[in-house]
Amino acid sequence: MAVGTTELPTMRPIGGVRLAAVSAGIKKPGRDDVVLLELSESTRCAAAFTQNAFCAAPVVIARQHLNAAAPRYLLINTGNANAGTGDAGLQAAQQSCHSLARAAGCRDNQVLPFSTGVIGETLPVEKIEAVLPEAVAKLDEQGWKEAAWGILTTDTVAKGASFEVDIDGHTVTISGISKGSGMIRPDMATMLAYIATDAAIAQPLLTQCLKNLLNRSFNRITVDGDTSTNDACLLIASGASTLPELSDESDPRYKTLFSALSAAFETLAQKIVRDGEGATKLITVDVLEAASDAEAQAVAYTVAHSPLVKTAFFASDPNWGRILAAVGRAGVEALVLEQIEIYLDDLCIVKGGGRAETYREELGQQVMMGDEITITIKLARGAVNCTVWTCDFSYDYVKINAEYRT
Amino acid sequence: MAVGTTELPTMRPIGGVRLAAVSAGIKKPGRDDVVLLELSESTRCAAAFTQNAFCAAPVVIARQHLNAAAPRYLLINTGNANAGTGDAGLQAAQQSCHSLARAAGCRDNQVLPFSTGVIGETLPVEKIEAVLPEAVAKLDEQGWKEAAWGILTTDTVAKGASFEVDIDGHTVTISGISKGSGMIRPDMATMLAYIATDAAIAQPLLTQCLKNLLNRSFNRITVDGDTSTNDACLLIASGASTLPELSDESDPRYKTLFSALSAAFETLAQKIVRDGEGATKLITVDVLEAASDAEAQAVAYTVAHSPLVKTAFFASDPNWGRILAAVGRAGVEALVLEQIEIYLDDLCIVKGGGRAETYREELGQQVMMGDEITITIKLARGAVNCTVWTCDFSYDYVKINAEYRT
Repeated sequence: MAVGTTELPTMRPIGGVRLAAVSAGIKKPGRDDVVLLELSESTRCAAAFTQNAFCAAPVVIARQHLNAAAPRYLLINTGNANAGTGDAGLQAAQQSCHSLARAAGCRDNQVLPFSTGVIGETLPVEKIEAVLPEAVAKLDEQGWKEAAWGILTTDTVAKGASFEVDIDGHTVTISGISKGSGMIRPDMATMLAYIATDAAIAQPLLTQCLKNLLNRSFNRITVDGDTSTNDACLLIASGASTLPELSDESDPRYKTLFSALSAAFETLAQKIVRDGEGATKLITVDVLEAASDAEAQAVAYTVAHSPLVKTAFFASDPNWGRILAAVGRAGVEALVLEQIEIYLDDLCIVKGGGRAETYREELGQQVMMGDEITITIKLARGAVNCTVWTCDFSYDYVKINAEYRT
Repeated sequence: MAVGTTELPTMRPIGGVRLAAVSAGIKKPGRDDVVLLELSESTRCAAAFTQNAFCAAPVVIARQHLNAAAPRYLLINTGNANAGTGDAGLQAAQQSCHSLARAAGCRDNQVLPFSTGVIGETLPVEKIEAVLPEAVAKLDEQGWKEAAWGILTTDTVAKGASFEVDIDGHTVTISGISKGSGMIRPDMATMLAYIATDAAIAQPLLTQCLKNLLNRSFNRITVDGDTSTNDACLLIASGASTLPELSDESDPRYKTLFSALSAAFETLAQKIVRDGEGATKLITVDVLEAASDAEAQAVAYTVAHSPLVKTAFFASDPNWGRILAAVGRAGVEALVLEQIEIYLDDLCIVKGGGRAETYREELGQQVMMGDEITITIKLARGAVNCTVWTCDFSYDYVKINAEYRT
């Protein structure tokens, strides 16, 4: 079960964006596994994809199509990642775009394909093709909820965020969905996330906007340190609102929108960690006062990836020595133990080179019983901060991943 | 249960080295938890310690003592790591050396302290002091077996290696013990390992010898990627054999000895992985044809640390896509998928950009049923090879680490 609230919020429609979810029988019979997003002609997109050297066929094709044309359709399937599938995989991805283009009336390169699921198996493209007319017919501005469910793999809950914000007297709406539960240590983007707003944003600013948003959301979560072959994140601006186009980063109206988008990105990223495979706790790792971004991230990720730290959290065991050991092996040069402070929520556990004098095991125990815990690590070396979200490591993580295919 | 044979071999005595194991009641009542090694005056030592920035108090003291004098006694306790214990921890480590020096008749700085166990708790030094006279009285050249058992923590089997080698008509003997099961990703040395030979080796060569041995043994194993605060490895040369002192790396007699020592180091390192917490399989990751040491290690460790790869091995599931994804995210620049080959033992699973044409799931399944499996990854980029040993990730890993203290 996911940590914290598991309900999908009411998903506000975004003018210019229609969605549909249908069942092609790729995953389980009867379960929606193909999702279609239609974007109006005025829509602009910014996209980020996995940095895994072996990216999946749909990632290769989506990149090509994005370079050639403005996307009108996003075609997403779950149950099969179409990764490690060679030339046949590329052909299958292209064929699905071609079939959709014919059914929807656009050019092949106006379709972006996305796949998620098992790696290394041939994509059953004919199953997808068979349901495309049904998907096109079902397209609806109210389709966010069905789409949120339709893109899941090992996820246990649908993940959505939806906000309305008033900018200069204009109502601007943001809705987004994401998926991901295992093979999560996004490097540039998460498994799959689609966030749309009806604001109009000029393309250069939209691209920059996505980059800035990722570095405080999807690029700062990790479940198991495994970066997927299929990660993709799309920021969609349909321009259907009455707010005039934004093109300047210093425009206060853009800043207001960025804050709201940031809330949506952070919410969706955290929901992936809350639903991390086998997760029973959401762990926020705050590294403060680092000398550089690189060392702040090194410390945060070393703690967030440590199986010993993660199993201790699963056991609600305030075994702070494991946190200390992880900080110590993060590769930070000339780290001085005596200057480090470590906190569990507001409780100081390490100070002055060892266990804080005020620390008592029962106080640590009390914090660890919660299901949302913040580890704060003060390095006292500079002014750079970094936050990473992760989850604990439970029996169920092993169970889910040992039984995923067998 | 450990993977493969779990029996301790017959441990040959090493002239000049006496051992004792006694029970101080630190760990469980009645279980040996303090081990003492006595080294003859002619003995030379080379030592390597953890690179974790927060090394434990005994590591700090051992380094100081090694710089000041040739060690005569190694005092090892289990059940308490004396790490993250600040000034009190340093005092406790010094006090234990002082008490032993008094009991054994040597200077304080001729004693090296070693601790392993829980981090962050005060070392019960008075319990150790109370059993030192008994330990000194029990010292015996035949004490290797008891010492091998006495240094364990979460290990399930004692780990030893013992060889005899004829060099130029002289019999040279090697015996060594090691411990470690969790928090294992040695960086410079493993948890604890003591390897002795009766050969005489000049100090500069002995130091170089240890460095070379570590980089093909303890520095190439990983259970969970967590580098301990207490890792230490000692190479001990007592000089009791009739073989004249070795001082030249190109001496063929040294080369013969190095091969034998290398076998002992590799055996002891592998035994740690075989007994990795919850391990059911020994996984050898061979990276071949890399362009540099750095990229060979990056690929090997990324695969060896991937929780998804490790859980798939636990399930005997030939989910090779997870191996491919791990190779892809190892950060190797301009990696070309089409040139990569991946094998499970001798079975080719990835070739030409995807699943090898000759690969069949049932063949992969067959390999995965074994309990010792080699993953070979050919990068086709150069001539550098690297081998890393690891184990799978099981329910028991979580169980052991979630219940370690609670």
